[in-house]
Amino acid sequence: MTQSSYHYDVIVIGAGHAGTEAAAAAARLGAKTALLTTNLDTVGQMSCNPAIGGVAKGQIVREVDALGGLMGKAIDATGIQFRLLNKRKGPAMHSPRAQADKKAYQFYVKHQMELQPNLDLRQETVIDLLTETVEGVTKVTGVSVTGDAQFIAPAVILTTGTFLKAIMHTGESQTAGGRAGEGTTTGISGSLNRLGFEVERFKTGTPARLNAKSIDFSSLELQPGDDEPQPFSFLTESLASLEQLPCYIAHTNDDVHRLIRANLDRAPMYSGQINSTGPRYCPSIEDKVVRFADKTSHQLFLEPEGRRTEEVYVNGISTSLPRDVQDRMFSMIAGLENAQIMRYGYAVEYDFCPPTQLWPHMESKRVNGLFLAGQINGTTGYEEAAGQGLIAGLNAARKVAGKDPWVPTRDQAYIGVLVDDLVTAGTDEPYRMFTSRAEYRLLLRQDNADRRLTPIADELGLIDADRRSAFQAKQKQIDVANELLKTARFENTPGDVYLRRNDVDWDQVRSHVPGLNLIDSEAARQVVYDIKYEGYINRQKMEVEKHHRLAEKKIPVAFDYNAIGPLRHEAREKLSRVRPLNLDQAKRISGVTPADLALVLTHLEGRKK
Amino acid sequence: MTQSSYHYDVIVIGAGHAGTEAAAAAARLGAKTALLTTNLDTVGQMSCNPAIGGVAKGQIVREVDALGGLMGKAIDATGIQFRLLNKRKGPAMHSPRAQADKKAYQFYVKHQMELQPNLDLRQETVIDLLTETVEGVTKVTGVSVTGDAQFIAPAVILTTGTFLKAIMHTGESQTAGGRAGEGTTTGISGSLNRLGFEVERFKTGTPARLNAKSIDFSSLELQPGDDEPQPFSFLTESLASLEQLPCYIAHTNDDVHRLIRANLDRAPMYSGQINSTGPRYCPSIEDKVVRFADKTSHQLFLEPEGRRTEEVYVNGISTSLPRDVQDRMFSMIAGLENAQIMRYGYAVEYDFCPPTQLWPHMESKRVNGLFLAGQINGTTGYEEAAGQGLIAGLNAARKVAGKDPWVPTRDQAYIGVLVDDLVTAGTDEPYRMFTSRAEYRLLLRQDNADRRLTPIADELGLIDADRRSAFQAKQKQIDVANELLKTARFENTPGDVYLRRNDVDWDQVRSHVPGLNLIDSEAARQVVYDIKYEGYINRQKMEVEKHHRLAEKKIPVAFDYNAIGPLRHEAREKLSRVRPLNLDQAKRISGVTPADLALVLTHLEGRKK
Repeated sequence: MTQSSYHYDVIVIGAGHAGTEAAAAAARLGAKTALLTTNLDTVGQMSCNPAIGGVAKGQIVREVDALGGLMGKAIDATGIQFRLLNKRKGPAMHSPRAQADKKAYQFYVKHQMELQPNLDLRQETVIDLLTETVEGVTKVTGVSVTGDAQFIAPAVILTTGTFLKAIMHTGESQTAGGRAGEGTTTGISGSLNRLGFEVERFKTGTPARLNAKSIDFSSLELQPGDDEPQPFSFLTESLASLEQLPCYIAHTNDDVHRLIRANLDRAPMYSGQINSTGPRYCPSIEDKVVRFADKTSHQLFLEPEGRRTEEVYVNGISTSLPRDVQDRMFSMIAGLENAQIMRYGYAVEYDFCPPTQLWPHMESKRVNGLFLAGQINGTTGYEEAAGQGLIAGLNAARKVAGKDPWVPTRDQAYIGVLVDDLVTAGTDEPYRMFTSRAEYRLLLRQDNADRRLTPIADELGLIDADRRSAFQAKQKQIDVANELLKTARFENTPGDVYLRRNDVDWDQVRSHVPGLNLIDSEAARQVVYDIKYEGYINRQKMEVEKHHRLAEKKIPVAFDYNAIGPLRHEAREKLSRVRPLNLDQAKRISGVTPADLALVLTHLEGRKK
Repeated sequence: MTQSSYHYDVIVIGAGHAGTEAAAAAARLGAKTALLTTNLDTVGQMSCNPAIGGVAKGQIVREVDALGGLMGKAIDATGIQFRLLNKRKGPAMHSPRAQADKKAYQFYVKHQMELQPNLDLRQETVIDLLTETVEGVTKVTGVSVTGDAQFIAPAVILTTGTFLKAIMHTGESQTAGGRAGEGTTTGISGSLNRLGFEVERFKTGTPARLNAKSIDFSSLELQPGDDEPQPFSFLTESLASLEQLPCYIAHTNDDVHRLIRANLDRAPMYSGQINSTGPRYCPSIEDKVVRFADKTSHQLFLEPEGRRTEEVYVNGISTSLPRDVQDRMFSMIAGLENAQIMRYGYAVEYDFCPPTQLWPHMESKRVNGLFLAGQINGTTGYEEAAGQGLIAGLNAARKVAGKDPWVPTRDQAYIGVLVDDLVTAGTDEPYRMFTSRAEYRLLLRQDNADRRLTPIADELGLIDADRRSAFQAKQKQIDVANELLKTARFENTPGDVYLRRNDVDWDQVRSHVPGLNLIDSEAARQVVYDIKYEGYINRQKMEVEKHHRLAEKKIPVAFDYNAIGPLRHEAREKLSRVRPLNLDQAKRISGVTPADLALVLTHLEGRKK
């Protein structure tokens, strides 16, 4: 046999939502990048729901976009229904969400990968991670693939999704595989074990898909898209001409719940067949029936999977109950009495690596140059995966270029919250983002993601000239509007002060200041929010300052907590495991007290002398 | 466990080109039909080249369409380049061919399956065939699937493609699976063995796919589509507004051939790693280099795989050579020096059932109600699969309805030639259609497939009102045109006689008969061919008559050739195996002599008395 070797700067394994963002980010930074996947026909596939965004998740997509990522443009190009959630709440809660044409989305993402300069998208099955250990330091050197070949690179990003040692469950029936009809990945699991990674199991689930021709939509409630669909990408001019498809709402009932209760002993989650933990906030229908026993009905959202398919995703009824129960369940639901199941719901168990094994920039502490992103870090959700992927790809490329990592802080981005939560606290259930996880959520609005991140992305080399000029044009509009407001007078009050009043809105000031008519709505929104929420925003910024001061107290990577004699055992153990990079991160480790921190600080300051 | 049972009239296993036509045909006839596939995302997938039609194959697609099938409409809806091959030859050789947008084609077919009344498309993995044997007669009763369920039906159609016990080869590397990234089907192989089917192995292959961004198209030869693209479906009005994509032609050279020769010991076909036979007329590049050793160059056709992908199929360089040889091969070809391979070429070995085990209507002789169609019968090509699928689906539905089978004869359709060749002669290499296989090819033109088959399809219940009225309108035009011609006079000659002259064409007669301007080009073509080729056509029809007379001598299904004492051993053995339905079919069995036939005839006539 002749072994083939291919040399790259960055290798990405897996081409889902994490892998594609990782590969694109690395390539945009100029790293020669290989994106390897077992089946090119599944690049960018939406394994579960045909939707992007949602509460807090939509904010992540806007951030990914502001950082030059793919997800926003992909959903804008292939969306079939757009809704801004929480519109009646404050702007910190506004969350964009869209239904995707699932296959159009997938092949759009694949095409972007094919077109991306510096990126080779290749169908390859990775069977092992290659490493070398020199003076006790293990570093990754590449991967081996089937067909007697090696891909060599100083940085490897692992994004295995739900495929590591995956088992699918539908009732008593179990099949090896990470997605119906596809296999499982075992080689890499072996590599991780050999390298000493801690590996645990999570589970997730998906509902049945129904054929629209068998659904009685007339007895369901219509859920249309927004009249004025808002794009995800800061580069998408308008979606006004988009033809949107409706979703529909159905309801479970007492009969369905009784059926589920009667068959709980056959649900893998309750029979003991599955022991791993599933996503709390995306529970299976059997979970809902048990946990919310007093509820007599749950909403189901029937979401079309695309413009050219009759497949309908039934959001809200994820399940691993046996097929006969799934058959009966639907037959009892108004509108779905004759629904034909095209694919059954199932649960899937898979390996993940508890993410406290990572530095905040997504590189593993154990193996130099090995980055992990997406579901392998214990998260759930396309958006969470995409955000991690972008950070991993960016930092893999930076590492190869000899640059320091960059990670957004908790006050800069939901992605910062995500990464910090993962590496500092780990997770004992599949982690999904919520607005409540972000203590500075008034700063981390979906509308200002570009203002928060695009200038940084520009410095990092993540964005192109189009995005730079679009951003600068918007910033210019904001500056002009602020200037016009300051000089205008309303009832002897400067315009910016006047606009602060609760009973005054943009249209009122605009009607008196002709120049403001030239300001487009996105820029105007920024001006209004800056003014109306100035007090709250300033308070959050003061809070942020305190944390920044604490974050300036760096802790050396090799810091030895055992050297602090009086440190409590629990604190010593947790600090040694997480290895926080600064006192602010250390403070967020659960079980580490202010007294512990004081000891660490004293010790650090003693060292400096 | 609770076993679920689902009851249908017809079950189709596999949703490729055979399975989808089979399921649609059965459902159109009113049979309650289930189409089962392991992965709904691969329904209608084009596993190899992104093209439909070609010499003789294009004729089959036109026939499938004339019989109410899918393939013609699917390629018309999703084609990206159309060419009528052999345009300078006579009309019997004209063969339509089109490049497809591979993924658009696939999902178009899937959508048609979803929309088809009487048809349930379901993601299910079949693990066994269910049969019962009563008084020595074995009949199929359904299938079992993973997840403890059964699908029950009196007719089952097996279309497993290349998936039965499949092994893929790229050089020394072997992987179980029927298509890259997908698994193999073992359960059904076991069922076939248990039921006593003879099972053999064939192999086929596919070339690498390249990324267009890495190809220097400026040094390649352009191959555009036809200026006036001709649709495949008799229902497609026009493709005039279609934006066509070009293909490109590259060439191998001596260096490439030397490289291949130097590595022949590493080619599975030559190293002994593969023993099964591949398609003679779609040879791998290593085959071409060996068999045509004097040729210093072979043409390669670079075919785009779609409108929204950079993947390019390299037609003409199918190979199972190791990846390092594939890498070097392309680097030596002008225009492809820097080509990036996205997927490597490979060969796949798979089980098939020698088709002499079938009756002409595609039902197996061994198991009542079990039909086989497509590559499992030893054929190659999407079109051959589709034709068989349609016949199997039609006859499965007819059987369930208690009706006699219908199969086109050799003078009615290429599909008739295909089916008769398979069941009468079997095949010792993957069977593909050629015009030379059709002795009545002047009758079996692509242009008249509707006139040959649509009226029959109408009687069979295969077509809808749209197709009926389109056909009748065309027939009406032909009748009117003939009437106008007969009554018109040119140089004192009736128009139909005048048109027969070599130096006279349609435009000349039309310019003198105003009514003919109302005849559209498709109808006019029929009128012209009928007149110009009348002599040849009549001669072929006389030939056909002789065969029909012989075909009227029916042989009972249970006829015992051992009862004919003087019959030669070879003839007895072959006749007993094939069990021809009439003397005409018997005559086509190789090794059966006219003297053998005379004995059979004598015996048959003796029985009648």
